[in-house]
Amino acid sequence: MKILVINCGSSSLKFQLIDSETEELTAKGLCERIGIAGSRISYTLTGHEKRKWDAPMADHKDAVRLMLQTLTNPEDGAVKELSEIGAVGHRVVHGGEHFSEATLITPQVKEAIMECTVLAPLHNPANLQGIEDCELQLPGVPQVAVFDTAFHQTMDEEAYLYAIPYRYYKQFGIRRYGFHGTSHQYVSRRAADILGKPYESLKLIICHLGNGASVSAIKDGRCIDTSMGLTPLEGLIMGTRSGDVDPGVLEMMAGKDGKNIHEVMRILNKESGVLGLSDGFSSDFRDLEDAYLEGNNPAATRAIKAFVLRVAKYIGAYAAELNGADAICFTAGIGENSPVIRELICSPYLEHLGVELDKEANNIRGKERIVSTPSAKTKVLVIPTNEELEIARHTLAIVKGK
Amino acid sequence: MKILVINCGSSSLKFQLIDSETEELTAKGLCERIGIAGSRISYTLTGHEKRKWDAPMADHKDAVRLMLQTLTNPEDGAVKELSEIGAVGHRVVHGGEHFSEATLITPQVKEAIMECTVLAPLHNPANLQGIEDCELQLPGVPQVAVFDTAFHQTMDEEAYLYAIPYRYYKQFGIRRYGFHGTSHQYVSRRAADILGKPYESLKLIICHLGNGASVSAIKDGRCIDTSMGLTPLEGLIMGTRSGDVDPGVLEMMAGKDGKNIHEVMRILNKESGVLGLSDGFSSDFRDLEDAYLEGNNPAATRAIKAFVLRVAKYIGAYAAELNGADAICFTAGIGENSPVIRELICSPYLEHLGVELDKEANNIRGKERIVSTPSAKTKVLVIPTNEELEIARHTLAIVKGK
Repeated sequence: MKILVINCGSSSLKFQLIDSETEELTAKGLCERIGIAGSRISYTLTGHEKRKWDAPMADHKDAVRLMLQTLTNPEDGAVKELSEIGAVGHRVVHGGEHFSEATLITPQVKEAIMECTVLAPLHNPANLQGIEDCELQLPGVPQVAVFDTAFHQTMDEEAYLYAIPYRYYKQFGIRRYGFHGTSHQYVSRRAADILGKPYESLKLIICHLGNGASVSAIKDGRCIDTSMGLTPLEGLIMGTRSGDVDPGVLEMMAGKDGKNIHEVMRILNKESGVLGLSDGFSSDFRDLEDAYLEGNNPAATRAIKAFVLRVAKYIGAYAAELNGADAICFTAGIGENSPVIRELICSPYLEHLGVELDKEANNIRGKERIVSTPSAKTKVLVIPTNEELEIARHTLAIVKGK
Repeated sequence: MKILVINCGSSSLKFQLIDSETEELTAKGLCERIGIAGSRISYTLTGHEKRKWDAPMADHKDAVRLMLQTLTNPEDGAVKELSEIGAVGHRVVHGGEHFSEATLITPQVKEAIMECTVLAPLHNPANLQGIEDCELQLPGVPQVAVFDTAFHQTMDEEAYLYAIPYRYYKQFGIRRYGFHGTSHQYVSRRAADILGKPYESLKLIICHLGNGASVSAIKDGRCIDTSMGLTPLEGLIMGTRSGDVDPGVLEMMAGKDGKNIHEVMRILNKESGVLGLSDGFSSDFRDLEDAYLEGNNPAATRAIKAFVLRVAKYIGAYAAELNGADAICFTAGIGENSPVIRELICSPYLEHLGVELDKEANNIRGKERIVSTPSAKTKVLVIPTNEELEIARHTLAIVKGK
């Protein structure tokens, strides 16, 4: 079966067509600047050249139409007829406490996704728009929602509650939800395969290190903690996001600049992280790493060192929560592609956990590999993430009624 | 030499007279409700009954006068004449980046303390008031300032910088300072004595667990990280303080209740922590522990579990930052007096660090003891803190020109 995986943002639509039997990518594409001047699409049939062209898209309906036309075009279409698409899997950012796993989309499910809009005001409405446009244009094809938060719903309350008055949780749902769940789930399952051990028997720490970044702790097949919280701002230092700060920092920032809380939040989301730490040098970890390695850019150096320390501290914290870890896995842009950052995190910070990096093995980018020494007590793995494949798997399972 | 140690709050003045040779407490007392109706003093000469009486104190000047009268009174005074007091050591909450150690008070020092008022608007002015009143009433007696932040000034920038735009640090001094420094310093030095090892060779994690609570990491005699930050709100879950929360929590709390950032901060400081988590049951850990042990109070249970998990995670994080720890030390109200909380923190969370609690040894309150088994790789110590003695030691060292 061919499964269409959709990730719909407020002005973009990413899609992949995946063959559920071979788990291979058939085609992929991206509609950008939907509803904005200069909208365009890019498209790649696997094994062929990528094509890009301008195309007017007034709304997501237009984008879905263009996507389906492109997927069935006679030259480099991926299918002959739309009927070959057996199911659509939608990435939905926030499932709140309603959804601890993927689900077939029904009117009730759409209502629940709408209810979660208060928790993800930018994302959920766009996700829902993509769902409704696909329902209209692919009638009769099962639509499945796969939530970014679902994998983390197994946390216990001591991990997900903030120490604020309890009524904020009961009345308003203010708690830790976590994000990147599909990636953490994919990578942790791959880790079990690579280690050749039952998923349910392992203690794993997954570091999803990209421009957005989070760490999760997985025990006996269940996520028990993760660094992103109510919002994707908490936890690690990211490209432009601060991660953890003393709440008092917000009050003082507001006081110094005469800003309100929303303006301070914008700064913490858009002007902070390694961009802020490096005094505006860059939010791109490749730039920062290059400057760090050259050694004469103190701003880049402090950004890298602070980023690395924060990751190491979260790994240490989760090693405590798990009472030790069988493996630490690195994924996403930085996690997959930066041997330098991986080494800085592991050594010396994690040596006391029995981490022992094999420097030669670690010298890879974007490939699956065990990068610790054979004798290391805690293994270190590099596992490229594949959220779309994970979404396709969940979609298939739902459609097959598994 | 007799050293008078003063801890001056906005409406209170705590004092201890310590013999610097024997390091023993000669007398202690507390002036309360200064400048408020119903002001009173309590006083204890060591080995005698505690006395309490109402006494009008319109301001700190009155309180200092009453303290000095009491210390020299013919019945249970601690000295015959004020000239026996060789020096005064003042606890000062915030030394900013000016002070990395205790210092003799001069007009320049007072100015610098005043400059730090922006960082501790409630505390520093009261501390300064106490200093000036003592200068007036004990002319010629050396006055020494001992800062709550000084011990943490050895942190590296990757530990003390927040990942916010760098100008907030450069222009406004927004960074991690840490508090409880005098306690962390006292306890870490005692740990070296008890372990019989050079202080400069040890990796220590100190858990100061009281109604306010913080953890610090000490390496080679130098504090390298601590959980309180710009303010004493960050880090652990406390009696009424939230500790760490997603910055997004503040925005959503404000939005739900129509509150501004200052009102949200008040809630995070005064209505949160275990009080908030237990849905208002109690901010007192003894109540919570009793209810937890009875086992039929889910609100108390979740507060205890969340508190314990947070402490364990910080210990794990600092174990990473230190690359392993020689010892973990518990101090302050809960740390000294709760075998139950200590056990919940250590087991199972810290077993992977080689922590092995000796349950019988751990069954103590308020006494110095190694409470791990002899074979434990990471030792666990209970060390009652003594901030006043530490202040007296620093004061003596300054006066002796050491």
